[in-house]
Amino acid sequence: MPAKDLYPSRTSAQPVILDRQDPVIHGTDFSAAPISEEQLNQYDEKGFLLLPEVFSRAEVSRFLNELQQMQQNQTLLDSERAITEPGSGALRSVFQIHQYNDLFSQVAADPRVADIARFILDDDLYIHQSRLNFKPGFNGREFYWHSDFETWHVEDGMPRMRALSASILLTDNSDFNGSLMVMPGSHRQYVSCVGETPEGYYRNSLQQQTVGTPDNHSLASLHKEFGLESTAAPAGSVLLFDCNLMHGSNGNITPMPRSNLFFVYNAVSNRCVAPFCNQPPRPEFLATRETFSLLPARNNARERKVG
Amino acid sequence: MPAKDLYPSRTSAQPVILDRQDPVIHGTDFSAAPISEEQLNQYDEKGFLLLPEVFSRAEVSRFLNELQQMQQNQTLLDSERAITEPGSGALRSVFQIHQYNDLFSQVAADPRVADIARFILDDDLYIHQSRLNFKPGFNGREFYWHSDFETWHVEDGMPRMRALSASILLTDNSDFNGSLMVMPGSHRQYVSCVGETPEGYYRNSLQQQTVGTPDNHSLASLHKEFGLESTAAPAGSVLLFDCNLMHGSNGNITPMPRSNLFFVYNAVSNRCVAPFCNQPPRPEFLATRETFSLLPARNNARERKVG
Repeated sequence: MPAKDLYPSRTSAQPVILDRQDPVIHGTDFSAAPISEEQLNQYDEKGFLLLPEVFSRAEVSRFLNELQQMQQNQTLLDSERAITEPGSGALRSVFQIHQYNDLFSQVAADPRVADIARFILDDDLYIHQSRLNFKPGFNGREFYWHSDFETWHVEDGMPRMRALSASILLTDNSDFNGSLMVMPGSHRQYVSCVGETPEGYYRNSLQQQTVGTPDNHSLASLHKEFGLESTAAPAGSVLLFDCNLMHGSNGNITPMPRSNLFFVYNAVSNRCVAPFCNQPPRPEFLATRETFSLLPARNNARERKVG
Repeated sequence: MPAKDLYPSRTSAQPVILDRQDPVIHGTDFSAAPISEEQLNQYDEKGFLLLPEVFSRAEVSRFLNELQQMQQNQTLLDSERAITEPGSGALRSVFQIHQYNDLFSQVAADPRVADIARFILDDDLYIHQSRLNFKPGFNGREFYWHSDFETWHVEDGMPRMRALSASILLTDNSDFNGSLMVMPGSHRQYVSCVGETPEGYYRNSLQQQTVGTPDNHSLASLHKEFGLESTAAPAGSVLLFDCNLMHGSNGNITPMPRSNLFFVYNAVSNRCVAPFCNQPPRPEFLATRETFSLLPARNNARERKVG
């Protein structure tokens, strides 16, 4: 019997806004948390938390060096895990870096991030999706408004809202170069979208998403209630945000590139089931399913801290 | 004999950055200026000046009402002065509003703006171009980096840098909804661009400009020297900027629309001659040439203040 769909989307002709059915912070003993009660409350209320300069300049340099290596790696460039630019063949994103790259698999387990995720989700964790993004200046594209959870639920079969994303900034993000905009508080409402998921939709949606996109009326309503907040921060900072937070970013015509590492932590009790649409699940490099492995436990992870 | 080309562009295979040959502020007796010496110095150094809330809320409402009238005016919508959206036919811009609209011809001559322009340009003035822009939210397009003067010089035959633009904000402009970004100080350098002007180029360039676009190397060089500044301001504010200031704006995915009135003041001594390219001049609605009339003199203009 298929799992009950608590968050139906792309199933009806009219968009609708539903209430969240899950807690935002699953951990209960706030005194045992690796961040302050004030920070936890902010995450609970707004759905995100910006941690300034968690990673040192030396660490960020090492990550950027690794990116440069990848840009030269033809085997990687030819693989489906690499998203390249149609014209130039330039590397834009690499997926599944927590599995195929030693350095980044250490970063995924780094306790400065993973311990916070573990407290918020209150479970053993695994990485649902990871990627390295490189966005050049001058013609950086927009990312339209979306809730990540809507896609992970419908296309990957993630049952509940018990996941979060960590974006590790590798370049300074300003209000000029298309840093992420969020609607603080929007994670408590779920915009059920219109339109059926087409076959093999992920191939197009990596370029531009049309199905699973919130309608203007719902967006205007969320904007009126919650407003907008910028997440501009210097390189090395970490942005943690709830899986259902409404977010997007404008394009970037400035000469300043924007790169980041992106890890999605999911609670093991929230493992993906069959997708909540009439399509097969997306491939493994977009959504962990077969190659499942738990993040090392807390103390273990500490020893593997990135040097 | 054609006029000497002090600012050649689109004539060579390599881009080059040339020095400005003209003063920024042509007026000399700063004590007689309608703005402070500090404001004049800022305009001189940075190439722009933001005047907060010059027009009242009541005036802005009246302008927006006029915009709504225009959106219903089929004769206008069918004319070449109206730029409509390909799919929906929705109005995006109306040109030549200083001639074909009583209210906006008064605004063009309003002494709160025109007197400052008259001091900076130190001459009798006329409107080289005017328009009303309406940019909706959700999918507002970017405007890529450019110097207005480059186009006005090459395509319209404006000989010298003795013109300025006034943008009157009809909606709040924030760092989120694609407010204008400027490179302060860039008005002292002229980026000579690559590429020949095609026939009837203005028809495409109103949608998206490719020729007359600064190259990445020149833009990165200007950005390194001058940085970026935001011009976010509330509705009713006026942004004055030099004809050669490098500026652009990111797209706008927020639900907040962005509208403005735009008037280009040119010194009468700087009237357009033959274009500095091998093409006929652009039509009158884009660049005043035949329908030339001086703005009313200072005292006269005061009496016509918009009520």
